[in-house]
Order: sequence, then C-alpha cells, then structure tokens
Amino acid sequence: MQTDPATGPLDGLVAALDIGGTKIAGALVDGEGRIRVRSQRPTPARDDGETVMGAVGDVLAELADSPLWEAAGAVGIGSAGPVDAYRGTVSPVNVPGWRDFPLVERVHKATGGRPVTLVGDGVAMTAAEHWLGAARGHDNALCLVVSTGVGGGLVLGGRVHPGPTGNAGHIGHMVVDMDGEPCACGGRGCVERIASGPHIARRALENGWRPGPDGDASAAAVAAAARAGDPVAVASFERAAQALAAGIAATATLVEIDIAVVGGGVAGAGEVLFAPLRRALTTYATLDFVRNLTVVPALTGTDAGLLGAAAAAVA
Amino acid sequence: MQTDPATGPLDGLVAALDIGGTKIAGALVDGEGRIRVRSQRPTPARDDGETVMGAVGDVLAELADSPLWEAAGAVGIGSAGPVDAYRGTVSPVNVPGWRDFPLVERVHKATGGRPVTLVGDGVAMTAAEHWLGAARGHDNALCLVVSTGVGGGLVLGGRVHPGPTGNAGHIGHMVVDMDGEPCACGGRGCVERIASGPHIARRALENGWRPGPDGDASAAAVAAAARAGDPVAVASFERAAQALAAGIAATATLVEIDIAVVGGGVAGAGEVLFAPLRRALTTYATLDFVRNLTVVPALTGTDAGLLGAAAAAVA
Repeated sequence: MQTDPATGPLDGLVAALDIGGTKIAGALVDGEGRIRVRSQRPTPARDDGETVMGAVGDVLAELADSPLWEAAGAVGIGSAGPVDAYRGTVSPVNVPGWRDFPLVERVHKATGGRPVTLVGDGVAMTAAEHWLGAARGHDNALCLVVSTGVGGGLVLGGRVHPGPTGNAGHIGHMVVDMDGEPCACGGRGCVERIASGPHIARRALENGWRPGPDGDASAAAVAAAARAGDPVAVASFERAAQALAAGIAATATLVEIDIAVVGGGVAGAGEVLFAPLRRALTTYATLDFVRNLTVVPALTGTDAGLLGAAAAAVA
Repeated sequence: MQTDPATGPLDGLVAALDIGGTKIAGALVDGEGRIRVRSQRPTPARDDGETVMGAVGDVLAELADSPLWEAAGAVGIGSAGPVDAYRGTVSPVNVPGWRDFPLVERVHKATGGRPVTLVGDGVAMTAAEHWLGAARGHDNALCLVVSTGVGGGLVLGGRVHPGPTGNAGHIGHMVVDMDGEPCACGGRGCVERIASGPHIARRALENGWRPGPDGDASAAAVAAAARAGDPVAVASFERAAQALAAGIAATATLVEIDIAVVGGGVAGAGEVLFAPLRRALTTYATLDFVRNLTVVPALTGTDAGLLGAAAAAVA
C-alpha cells in the first residue's frame, strides 16, 4: 500500500478499482480527485475466476487497512469489457476465467455492503477526463482510448452517458468501412480493426516497413519511424487517423459533440497521429453542427481508470 | 381548416407545425395525441423568405380561428433541416429563401407570445414514434426516415435526445464507407449516399435496371421490380439495407439502443428492404449489448411530423 502525501478534507471519499488484463489497481480518491491511498496487484489473467477475484480481494483488503477506509462511502469499478452494468457482471476479453462474473455483488460483500457502481473502462476514462481532464466544462464530448483496442465513452448533456449496460461510447466497434476486413468482434470494418496499435503495426509490416536492430515492431516503433519520415509508417498512421476521424465524425453527427479527447498508448505518437486526424476530420465532419469539433489529447494519464471509477461512484 | 371529429378533454393541447419543402402543415393536438384541428398550405419553396413565412402565418391564422385555439398553451415546430434549436433558426436545404431564418422568434410573435420549441424533422418523427408508435415503451431507440434523404432521431434514457442544436440522430450523414463516394453534404460514404430513395433508383439504373412503360424510375418502382424478382433491383435494395444496417449497428454500439424504427417512403418497400436489413444487422451488430437489437416499421405515418412537433412542445 502506498499512501500519497495529499492531505485535506475527506468529503466525497470513495474507493476505486481499475481492472484490466495486466493489473488490478485500487485507490481511495477524495472529492477533489486526489488519490490518497493506492494498492495494486498483477491480474492473474490465465487463472480461474476465483483466483482473479482473490487478487481483487487483496487490493481491497490493503485499502481497508488504511485509516481513511471508513470514510469511503461507495465503490466505483472501471473494468475491461464487455461489462453488463445492468446485471453487475463482467466478461473481460483478456480474462477468460471471468465470464458473466458477478463482480458487483462480490465487491459489495467484500466491502461491508457499500454501494458499488460498475462501468466499462472506456466510460471510466471518459468520466475522468470530464471531471479533471480535457473534457472538463464540455457538456457533449467523446473520449477515446486508442491502445491494444479502441474504447471510448460519451458525455451528453453535461453527464457521462454509460448506457443501460455501461458500454456506450464503444467507438472501436463502430463500422466505418462496411465492405472492410473482418474484425475480431465478428463484424467487419470496425474502427478498431484499422486504428488500434497492433493493426497500425501489422499494416506497416505488410506494406514493407521493418523494425530496427532492437526488433521492436510495436505501434510506438512505427510512430518513431513515421517521425523520422518513413513513408510506409506515415501511411499506416494516416490510415488509422482516417478511421478514427470517420468514427468521431459519425459520433458527432449522431449525438452532437463539440470535443473528442484521445488517450491511450497510440495517442502517445503525438502529431504523427493528431495531424492526419485533424485533416481527415475536415473530410468527414462537414455539417454545420459538427464542423467546429476539436480533437485534443487526454490529460489524466495512467490514473484515468481509477479517477474515472471514482467519478462513476459519486455520479 | 379541417376540424376532426375527435372530442374529449383539451388537457395538454398544443399547436404543432410540420415544415417541409413541399407543404407546411399545422394542427392543434391534444394530450392524448389526437389531432383536433388541421390546416395546410403548399410551401412556396422557391420564393423569398418572407413569402414562406407568410404561408406559415396563414396556417397559424387558420388554426387561431378555431374555438380550441385559446386552450393551446405552447407551439412545437418540426422542420426540415438543418435547424439550430439553440439559436431558434432554420435553413432547410430545399427552401433556399430561409437561411438562418429566425423561425422561433417569428412564430412566438405570431402566436401571441406562446412558448415555441423547435426540433429537426427526424427528431420530430422520433418523438411521435416514442409517444404513440413503434418506439413506445422503449427507453433507448433510434428512429429513421428513409426517403429523399435519410434522417433520424434518438431516444436515450427514456427521453428524446435532440442534442444542443436539435440535429442529433442524423444517421443519414454517418460515415459507413470511409473510402466511398462523395456525398452532397461534403463528406463521403454517408448512409444517405447509399440508402436514400434517389440513390436506390440511381444504382439500379446504373446497373441496367430499366423502368416499365409508365417511365416510373423511382425507388418505389425499383421496389416493385425487386418484388417481381428483378436481380438488379433486389441488389440495389440489398446495398441500401447494408448501409442502413451498418449505421444502425454503429449507433447501437455507440449509445446502446434496443430498437430501430424505420419510416419514410422507402420503408414502404416492406420486406424488400426489411429482410436484407435484418440479415445485414447480424453481420454488423455482434457485441453482446447490441445483439438483441430489433428493426421494425414505423407506425405514425404521414402525421408523424405534426404529432412529433406536438410531443416536442410538451417535453
């Protein structure tokens, strides 16, 4: 357990869990969005469901050791999807031991009956950006996480819009190329199939880009090559940017947003991604009510999941 | 003026205007959704803005002649778009004399200072279907009008979601074919570019379909040919259905809806459209939380615009 040096009133203190395929992070977060206590475990992603739940229990137990624990009135969970907030279950793609796992009920019991709110990780990141990040003050926004997958969430009418099952804003599986390649979700031509980190790298390799002496064939390596002027690397990012722009423009056309906030590892490519993304948006976002849409990088960084889970708990 | 035979209490009576490129319809609608008084004028669409407003004034004056007028507490307007509900202006594509025309202010003055609510025609149709039609009882729905253009509207969390400017649900200009043909909106690969009536007819003609002796080359004639088994006509409807399915699936993925209601002239093609639409949806709507999506025909018919404008006035 790590206790952060932040001090101050404990008003609105909540417990937050950020559950992914690699780690399970927990925190006590105060009403100002400061992380007061932290705890973390690796996700035993290949083990059975009870073992994974055991790691969640360890994270919660460590938080409960804090003298601040009693002040935490509620628990928020942001989890890798799919989630079903209506039923309180999760089925994270990368955690096969959890299928329709009743996480809300289990965490409710493990925390002495505290109220528990579950959202998908894209919605959590959106809640964080709306509370403390680049979407702050925007009543209608789309936030995206472009990484191994492409996730997202919506702010509509001044509030995070999780949808009935907590999956709304799932821009990664919007169709932008209806005759396109089959996607892992079973559909075809999804934004994720074109714009995720692994697909940026795959496309560059297919078109002749080769990694350097270190053998790094990740999207980050493709981004470095693009910055150095490699035309195949540049083209792969441009294609990803085109798909993201089509998805963002379609979102704006459908629900009227005025800002798109892009986070996740691939957003770390900076202008290699953002410059063609802004250009491509002028192609697709043409109607009056979407033309002023802006695209900016996310601000809440690696704590987005925890801060967003905390925000969901108090919403 | 036509006075309908409906009788009963006047609770919730409102005045409604449905403004399109062909006609301007007005009505007094009671709280049960019954049209009690009607009035209508052709839209002088090629004339200057004041002449068009004159026709609106004539419709309103005729309604005001009714003994029920004094009971009408508010006015709802559904207008061909684009509209700007935030500023109270309209700029219907097919009425060039109205560009940023201050319709809300003008109707407010013409109706003795009654409160006026403006929505786009797609949102109005959605409000009608949610109140009295196929989307009744559904908290999360998409309604579409497939006709000369493709419009639509959203119900989210049990309420019609017009968006800040009244244009939300604009599915016709969602991108579903990011490398596709240029659209009249300035974008490319929009749903409307593939699925509207004129584009269904154009595609059939381009691929060798020929109208019968009556020379009717409309989408309705293509639908008749498709029903008779003409493979080119069938294929043109299948392509339209594919684009609509991609847009509907993208909408469900983004905001979580459980029903899509399809109205407008092209929906009159019946199973020629709906059968391939349901098939194509299984291709694109694959994630757990969208898989149970159903597609049904609209129920409110030609009065949808008036009923939806009335619903908007009381929302």
